Amino acid sequence: MPEKPQYSSCEVPRLRGEKSDNRNRRYAFKEDFTWKGVKLQEYKEGGADWSAIARQVLIGARGESAGFHLRYFEIMPGGYSSFETHKHEHVVICIRGKGRARVNRRSIDLKYLDVLYINPETVHRLSNPFKEPFGFFCIVNARRDRPWPVKMKNQK
Amino acid sequence: MPEKPQYSSCEVPRLRGEKSDNRNRRYAFKEDFTWKGVKLQEYKEGGADWSAIARQVLIGARGESAGFHLRYFEIMPGGYSSFETHKHEHVVICIRGKGRARVNRRSIDLKYLDVLYINPETVHRLSNPFKEPFGFFCIVNARRDRPWPVKMKNQK
Repeated sequence: MPEKPQYSSCEVPRLRGEKSDNRNRRYAFKEDFTWKGVKLQEYKEGGADWSAIARQVLIGARGESAGFHLRYFEIMPGGYSSFETHKHEHVVICIRGKGRARVNRRSIDLKYLDVLYINPETVHRLSNPFKEPFGFFCIVNARRDRPWPVKMKNQK
Repeated sequence: MPEKPQYSSCEVPRLRGEKSDNRNRRYAFKEDFTWKGVKLQEYKEGGADWSAIARQVLIGARGESAGFHLRYFEIMPGGYSSFETHKHEHVVICIRGKGRARVNRRSIDLKYLDVLYINPETVHRLSNPFKEPFGFFCIVNARRDRPWPVKMKNQK
């Protein structure tokens, strides 16, 4: 059963020290899978049910008016995101390595440029059981609910 | 000055014959830059101010509840999109070849995985002056206004 959330993996607070910026802007990609002008962050600030993930908020941390946010997450080999559920949708696009999504009871492997739609109220986790970093874009509604962590016996 | 729009390049009607589908779903990428289960379409149905563009609606044509749509456009060498403006934002991610964006008076080149944010009321056009196909994701709000075509003297 879901527990009361103590933190949010989806909440994207305005970056400290970054001023509101709804201007036209290009974020140039760098070969190490960072983008010029985008901060590299930890996946989230608290919680113990995740491992080895970095996040970059490409669109959504600067007061952009768009109704969606674009983030890039990278999971190291052996790492995984929180097992959680929420009312908002995810769209995941794999752009580096390979990864695995637990979607309710299904296990779905993702390779380069595969697109995954996760609908509301679906318990899910992204993980990397492979040997190379697994990097993916994740698009979410700008206005969204906080996720609820879920405990499961057979997490993979 | 903007003219009254006769058609929309951004409108994404429900695909004919496709039933509403808000399920969890993976769209597997194929090497020819199509996705299994996604229809290849023309950029738009009418208008003469664009050339050599194909579109695929990955998220948004099946009644998904997400507040945004994800499309993939591919512009052949020499091709270009409508020169237009609207109140909604664009987020463009280059994933194939290189391309060029006209953003108000600026010309911005896009290479692999560069991300471009185009804010509301910006006149813009995407084009491909290079020798290989230029492919990019374009993310937009699900609810959005129709674009207005713009005439300009020095289009590039």
